[in-house]
Amino acid sequence: MRRDRLLLVGTFTAIFLADFYFVLFPKLLHRVQGPGEDCLCPSSRGTNLTLAGNSALVTPWLSNTSIYLEAMEVRATNESAEWGSKLGRLFAHPLYNIQIPELGLKEQLLQSEELMGYYRRKVSRWERHMKLYSEAAAAVNVTVLGNQVTFDPEASWLKFHLGINRYALYARDDPAIPRLLQDMQAATVISADYTQDEKALKGACDCSQVVKPSGHHLKLAMKLQNFGKAMFKPMRQLREQETPDDVFYFVDFQRHNAEIAAFHLDRILDFRRVPPVVGRLVNLTRDVLQSTVNEDLRSVFFTSPANNTCFFAKCLYVCKTEYAVCGRPDLLEGSMSAYLPGLSIAPRISIPNPWIRSYTFTGKEEWEVNPFFCDNIKQIYPYNSGNRLLNIMDMAIFDFLMGNMDRHHYEIFTKFGDDGFLLHFDNARGFGKHSHDEMSILAPLSQCCIIKRSTLLRLQLLHQDHYRLSDVMRESLGQDTLEPILTEPHLQALDRRLQRVLKTVQRCVRRLGQAQVITTDFIDSAVMPDTVHAVAASNKER
Amino acid sequence: MRRDRLLLVGTFTAIFLADFYFVLFPKLLHRVQGPGEDCLCPSSRGTNLTLAGNSALVTPWLSNTSIYLEAMEVRATNESAEWGSKLGRLFAHPLYNIQIPELGLKEQLLQSEELMGYYRRKVSRWERHMKLYSEAAAAVNVTVLGNQVTFDPEASWLKFHLGINRYALYARDDPAIPRLLQDMQAATVISADYTQDEKALKGACDCSQVVKPSGHHLKLAMKLQNFGKAMFKPMRQLREQETPDDVFYFVDFQRHNAEIAAFHLDRILDFRRVPPVVGRLVNLTRDVLQSTVNEDLRSVFFTSPANNTCFFAKCLYVCKTEYAVCGRPDLLEGSMSAYLPGLSIAPRISIPNPWIRSYTFTGKEEWEVNPFFCDNIKQIYPYNSGNRLLNIMDMAIFDFLMGNMDRHHYEIFTKFGDDGFLLHFDNARGFGKHSHDEMSILAPLSQCCIIKRSTLLRLQLLHQDHYRLSDVMRESLGQDTLEPILTEPHLQALDRRLQRVLKTVQRCVRRLGQAQVITTDFIDSAVMPDTVHAVAASNKER
Repeated sequence: MRRDRLLLVGTFTAIFLADFYFVLFPKLLHRVQGPGEDCLCPSSRGTNLTLAGNSALVTPWLSNTSIYLEAMEVRATNESAEWGSKLGRLFAHPLYNIQIPELGLKEQLLQSEELMGYYRRKVSRWERHMKLYSEAAAAVNVTVLGNQVTFDPEASWLKFHLGINRYALYARDDPAIPRLLQDMQAATVISADYTQDEKALKGACDCSQVVKPSGHHLKLAMKLQNFGKAMFKPMRQLREQETPDDVFYFVDFQRHNAEIAAFHLDRILDFRRVPPVVGRLVNLTRDVLQSTVNEDLRSVFFTSPANNTCFFAKCLYVCKTEYAVCGRPDLLEGSMSAYLPGLSIAPRISIPNPWIRSYTFTGKEEWEVNPFFCDNIKQIYPYNSGNRLLNIMDMAIFDFLMGNMDRHHYEIFTKFGDDGFLLHFDNARGFGKHSHDEMSILAPLSQCCIIKRSTLLRLQLLHQDHYRLSDVMRESLGQDTLEPILTEPHLQALDRRLQRVLKTVQRCVRRLGQAQVITTDFIDSAVMPDTVHAVAASNKER
Repeated sequence: MRRDRLLLVGTFTAIFLADFYFVLFPKLLHRVQGPGEDCLCPSSRGTNLTLAGNSALVTPWLSNTSIYLEAMEVRATNESAEWGSKLGRLFAHPLYNIQIPELGLKEQLLQSEELMGYYRRKVSRWERHMKLYSEAAAAVNVTVLGNQVTFDPEASWLKFHLGINRYALYARDDPAIPRLLQDMQAATVISADYTQDEKALKGACDCSQVVKPSGHHLKLAMKLQNFGKAMFKPMRQLREQETPDDVFYFVDFQRHNAEIAAFHLDRILDFRRVPPVVGRLVNLTRDVLQSTVNEDLRSVFFTSPANNTCFFAKCLYVCKTEYAVCGRPDLLEGSMSAYLPGLSIAPRISIPNPWIRSYTFTGKEEWEVNPFFCDNIKQIYPYNSGNRLLNIMDMAIFDFLMGNMDRHHYEIFTKFGDDGFLLHFDNARGFGKHSHDEMSILAPLSQCCIIKRSTLLRLQLLHQDHYRLSDVMRESLGQDTLEPILTEPHLQALDRRLQRVLKTVQRCVRRLGQAQVITTDFIDSAVMPDTVHAVAASNKER
């Protein structure tokens, strides 16, 4: 109980300090200097809205905050001299350095011993299988790549799995993440296969499942030498191609670069709810055809008229080589997304998004026709308490920034209960159109008019010149070997959409008052009494 | 017998006159003037090959012919003053004015009374059906467009069907053809439905039939107000888009503009074996959705996210809206190909092309690996006598010019027996790549080394500046309302490919001598003794 009280005091201190930086001090300076020249949201300049529940003062929406963030930035830059960049400046900013409290066992997804045991069992099963398979293959004169698995207790994917906790998939400064990205980008692939979803379909085209159309079937599960596992989604579309206007979101191509960009965006928003993703130039012959023991997968490979190695969607066999993807002659770009721990040791549940779309040509869901939809949702478990609805807002903002309309379900780890964070899985249908902002994706925010204070503060920061979202995204994506990941129009769209998110919040605040709209994170929940401690102790990490 | 002898004399006179124009006279002038400046085939200039079997003189390959054709052209232009164009000049050329002998009953596909009876029965059946359907529709409150059929004994499609004879689908100057094109382009559509092929599939995806993949299912049979019938193939690809190198010919899109261009090319080559085709801007809502009584067809219509009217391939229902085509918002370009008379009154047979491709990823057909393939074919019925093999050469040249690799079968009218002309059906996979000349399409010609003299003479004419194939095609295609039908690179490719055809013939002549290679048309055939009369009497039409 004493520790709880300490954390509570810490939380409020952090919030007060943030308010002072963003609200009180700017307001005072504003009165002394008049409206700043660098106001980023001129249409709303001078409106009297407060952002901070703790501050009695009113503040112009966003005005002048950049001046004070600049002062903070100087300090941040001094503190982390290695950052000579906007991205470095962003990650050094106090808002990105709020520390989580020390984690109890219940707050970590996995225990080391448990995972190690699981890993050892997997490795020995693999070795047994490979021995049997090699013998069988030798009998029928088929060569199998003799890939050796190395048991490595320091493997990056192990460290990633061990680092997952109730707050996020990884810590901001976890050194395992860059190592994991490096491994997925370059480590030897020892096996390739269809994913479990695919195998469940058994090669049949499940036409009743409109949600899972083409494209789906081209993703593959890849095992790396150190037994790490990644999902490979091949390139199907040039970065310059926009999704045609007539294409429904649910039959749009899956884009490997959208998967990569979504990981970077999620990290920049400080959600850390997307498993690490990196681009890789996969050798289809060596890394897939010669690495798989699945005869079905082998059977969909062919050599194109241009002598390139290609493979096509399984359930569409014979009829549909248009669905094929081809290397040049063997090399094909794709995204590699880190697998989460297996469901047997870290169960997750999949929950329909309350703002799900109809996935039919004509159907409309309730949220599209009922302006009071959110009032109903707010009454219903699990959205009637805790963080769940706020997490949905975060997800809606994330999806809106990408233009992703395909969020039919979300997943959470069962271990963390109802207030656990939402996994932002499967983002390949984002970044389809840069020239269009699909406002309906923001429906949760515009209908419920609530947002986490911490999310809003980061969005405001990313709207400033010094931390501009497009600039930090460009810089972050530049670290990927397949750069450029997004074309300039897509990067510019991010800034435009961010402004639209802020305007939506602004309209809510104007209508309902900031106390109603801007919510302090991690509300004490009846379901999860421990959550009150979260994001407490805003001491900076350095 | 007397008539036969007269025709024989006429034929030889015609051939001698043509030889005089193209060979003897040029040769004499060549000796006087030296090689002409406008020789079109410099690489072969001065080779001593004869084109004409009847002339004892040798002639340089193609050299100087244009000078004499020019002289002929002046006359032709004077004779047909309405032609102020290359296309007019071409069609006024003596080679395009060789008259066929008066037709016996056996040489016409249909008799007028027979066709009129058929037509009357069809119209009354239609009226009966529409009455029943209207009553049924009224009972369930569905509105049906009350399209009235007009019985018109002068209808253009009737005239087209009546004009089909053993030599071609239509006469060069048949006034019914421009009327038919006009009707298909603008007349009211009274019904739309799947084609018979489609209906035979009953909506199932016949995956074993690699030959008939996607695209197939988007074509529709349209009935016009005067009971004419046309096959509609919608636009699926922009004219600027080239078929990707990795796409196999048998899964390539079907192109509406290729269908249109093929009709014009076939007419310019004077084959007249492609049923008339014209471009039309179809109103998907009015001309298809509201005109069909087929519930299956209605069920594949939907409104796209961009509010356009779309429909998609039947057998791929639910899973595959990527296969949809959409209007803007209702209007969609397409090709309208005239139907031939029904199989019940004018039966046809479909015969596999001896140079068929494998339609699998890896298979090779015999002609691809056996350089003596044609020697075998020449021994086999029906290619061992008559015109059949020469007709295959014409088809190969036609397909090579278009880049059409998808000629798996050809059809002939049973009435005209084995020496009947081959129908050049289904040309929608032509004109896919302008930047590539697929030499394997010419395999019949390069392996058999035979060609009809009349075909060769026309190809040589179209290789001249004054009749240049690309120019006459551009002009001819300019008559279509959907112009431009082909992009410039596709038109340029025609000239380049024509030169390759001529070079292939040249190589054959060099190897085997012209007597072996260049064959006088309509050889007396044991199977069809009447054919000896064909293309006799080369008196000009005007």
